[in-house]
Amino acid sequence: MATLPSVSYSITVRLELDAGGSAVGSLTNAVEQVGGMITALDVAAAGHERIRIDVTCAARDTEHAQAIVDALGSVDGVTVHKVSDRTFLMHLGGKIEMKSKVPLRNRDELSMAYTPGVARVSQAIAANKDDARRLTIKRNSVAVVTDGSAVLGLGNIGPEAAMPVMEGKAALFKRFADIDAWPIALDTQDVDEIVRTVQLLAPGFGGINLEDISAPRCFEVEARLRELLDIPVFHDDQHGTAIVVLAALRNALRVVNKKLSEVRIAMSGAGAAGTAILKLLMHAGARDIIVSDVHGAVHAGRENLDSNLQWIAENTNPTGYSGDLKGAVAGADVFIGVSAPNLLSGEDIAEMNEDSIIFALANPDPEVDPDVAHLHAAVVATGRSDYPNQINNVLVFPGFFRGLLDAQSHNVTSDMMVAAAKALADVVTDDELGPNYIIPSVFHSDLSNHVANAVREVAQRGVADQD
Amino acid sequence: MATLPSVSYSITVRLELDAGGSAVGSLTNAVEQVGGMITALDVAAAGHERIRIDVTCAARDTEHAQAIVDALGSVDGVTVHKVSDRTFLMHLGGKIEMKSKVPLRNRDELSMAYTPGVARVSQAIAANKDDARRLTIKRNSVAVVTDGSAVLGLGNIGPEAAMPVMEGKAALFKRFADIDAWPIALDTQDVDEIVRTVQLLAPGFGGINLEDISAPRCFEVEARLRELLDIPVFHDDQHGTAIVVLAALRNALRVVNKKLSEVRIAMSGAGAAGTAILKLLMHAGARDIIVSDVHGAVHAGRENLDSNLQWIAENTNPTGYSGDLKGAVAGADVFIGVSAPNLLSGEDIAEMNEDSIIFALANPDPEVDPDVAHLHAAVVATGRSDYPNQINNVLVFPGFFRGLLDAQSHNVTSDMMVAAAKALADVVTDDELGPNYIIPSVFHSDLSNHVANAVREVAQRGVADQD
Repeated sequence: MATLPSVSYSITVRLELDAGGSAVGSLTNAVEQVGGMITALDVAAAGHERIRIDVTCAARDTEHAQAIVDALGSVDGVTVHKVSDRTFLMHLGGKIEMKSKVPLRNRDELSMAYTPGVARVSQAIAANKDDARRLTIKRNSVAVVTDGSAVLGLGNIGPEAAMPVMEGKAALFKRFADIDAWPIALDTQDVDEIVRTVQLLAPGFGGINLEDISAPRCFEVEARLRELLDIPVFHDDQHGTAIVVLAALRNALRVVNKKLSEVRIAMSGAGAAGTAILKLLMHAGARDIIVSDVHGAVHAGRENLDSNLQWIAENTNPTGYSGDLKGAVAGADVFIGVSAPNLLSGEDIAEMNEDSIIFALANPDPEVDPDVAHLHAAVVATGRSDYPNQINNVLVFPGFFRGLLDAQSHNVTSDMMVAAAKALADVVTDDELGPNYIIPSVFHSDLSNHVANAVREVAQRGVADQD
Repeated sequence: MATLPSVSYSITVRLELDAGGSAVGSLTNAVEQVGGMITALDVAAAGHERIRIDVTCAARDTEHAQAIVDALGSVDGVTVHKVSDRTFLMHLGGKIEMKSKVPLRNRDELSMAYTPGVARVSQAIAANKDDARRLTIKRNSVAVVTDGSAVLGLGNIGPEAAMPVMEGKAALFKRFADIDAWPIALDTQDVDEIVRTVQLLAPGFGGINLEDISAPRCFEVEARLRELLDIPVFHDDQHGTAIVVLAALRNALRVVNKKLSEVRIAMSGAGAAGTAILKLLMHAGARDIIVSDVHGAVHAGRENLDSNLQWIAENTNPTGYSGDLKGAVAGADVFIGVSAPNLLSGEDIAEMNEDSIIFALANPDPEVDPDVAHLHAAVVATGRSDYPNQINNVLVFPGFFRGLLDAQSHNVTSDMMVAAAKALADVVTDDELGPNYIIPSVFHSDLSNHVANAVREVAQRGVADQD
């Protein structure tokens, strides 16, 4: 599992060099010798004696980027000027903006969009609160709420540092499902305060997407908000991941011709994502699951279980297995890891049942090297974009919320999640299905429409049941 | 003061009528006979026998709109189909949206805007929180926060019904100062909860615009938030109004050649706007002010004064006048009303000092009929768009926040407000200045730049003082 240069570590280096010399030809060599990759070379200004060139390179990480700059500077006759980081340039000033949908060119338009005309619209909503879904942005808006406590793999970095991720999430909502999401990064990690704050700001939103809130607080925040609010609340780190895993597992099982209700599943990780995956798999019919965490298998006889682990102990691991992860993996049909890097070796995978399925989702380094896992397993999926079968929440959350908003749903149910997983899995046709294609690309056209339709259908049934 | 048809009550009526008949010619007459005004007439479909016409009319109010529809329907051979309200059409689905500033066309762009590239940006902010102003939307975003307790003249209509106004406000922020504002309508009217909620959601915003929160709670909310937050907090109903009033008064005094420090000012209204106007006028040098509310003049001998009125009693009305509003107005140079309709008559205005200035800002019906006031006063201003000299917050708040954001200001000071008022007043040149032009139009080009520059200059001085 070599780490390759990535555009996410892309730099642009401005160089000045002799116009007549052979230095230009040496640049590519210099970069390649330190393992970099030139992706673009633009002449910024050319004179008789000197020329300026912008060289853009993909690097592995910050140190590697510096090594590339040094290599370029050591070429004869080359002077290094400014070094720009393309990713930072992209984030400068933030990644999203607010846009008005109404023209405000003249007095007439002002008087309809704002005072005095707006007063009648406000009065209509005051008379019938449901009209807010018709006459305000509530119809299409989602709050992306975080407390900055579990941001990506970076941990508890706080609300300000979480903002670039939340803005990115908002941009994805728009790109893939035309939803207007706005990031709300909260300056508290107290469960009561998070719950109350979200409850108080809910009137202007049609849905709440909780994001990067650490376990076990995220469970309580979500459960209490679902109880309190009349708009859907969805913790993407839990349910988005769970839906994509279920979709991918459905298709992986199609590949090896096994049934969800019959396979033995070994899971690693009992955090937010692990617990949500577990519950959704069980809701979809899985029966034989053993969950392990850093202390080994979760079983009824283990002590000091918190309420979440207690639930897992009572509802999984029917034989009461009390060994370690490797023992749980031996003989299993499916391994699903949402935990830590390099927990399993090729030998461990070889001990699994025939035609095993490996979902090693720890990021950036999976629970088992996917190249090694491939030697022994029938299907391998990871969270990485540089291997086939990437398990990526972006496959689900935009379409899922699209369906919720279109149905004006008041809640989120497990049935909706199973329907979304089925719709996502079904995007891969029988002809296309194979060990390296169990899940579509995020750029698959119309993906979010498929998911949205499935969610909307279940949601509308739910709304009809309530009426 | 006749109420004229307004586009803010504009309707479009779809009619079907005989193609050959004379009905088309009768439509304009029919509308005019009930006092309506046709602003557009579009043939939607024409056949040999029947044609469809969309007639757009301005009406005075809902009843008047119905009268127009009835009049159209009574024309021989005319059938009325759908009636659309243009203002409601404009608000359908909300007036603002979220837009991504970064392209997400392919995997490379995704990996820079979102994971894995975004992680480095988050790490940079985690290492240096101030970088949030460089690398996130904090740099240009404002939360428009309301509790729905004092929305326009509609009163306590709640957060959902306040949303159309807040969205309009956000649209104006963008239109006039390229600021990304997002509305936050809170489901509480408890001061402690409002303060705490705004404090918790502040990390993602560069400023807080409080809006339509009723007095006296708004004073405490603002004062406490200013104490708690390191971003500027501005209650537009108070300070936006105060700044425009000070600007307009500066120019009105130029017209009549009087000095702010020498004139006697009678004010009506001690609510949010009234109190802010009072304090800013005093900060700018006004000395002789008597404020009246529904119980008459506020003076030191009055009982049951709340803390706000107590402050007013102690700092104004030096002679201890204890009569009613009319008595306070008699002999005054300036009347400023932010209170209730029709409190004063032409006779009251005639009792004022020579070359009197009237700011009758109650909306939609001023404290005195402006047509009547004009008979006795030198300068008359109102809050209405159908008279000259409209005192409109839109003249100030976009440019004011532009200046605050550009300076990365941590606070709002009275000096900034006086500077903004001066900049706004100075947009009117000596050549242009006159009784009917003391304040520019909201569409005056570059207006918000003038205000922004003035605010930024004071703010940067402030930041420099702190360093």
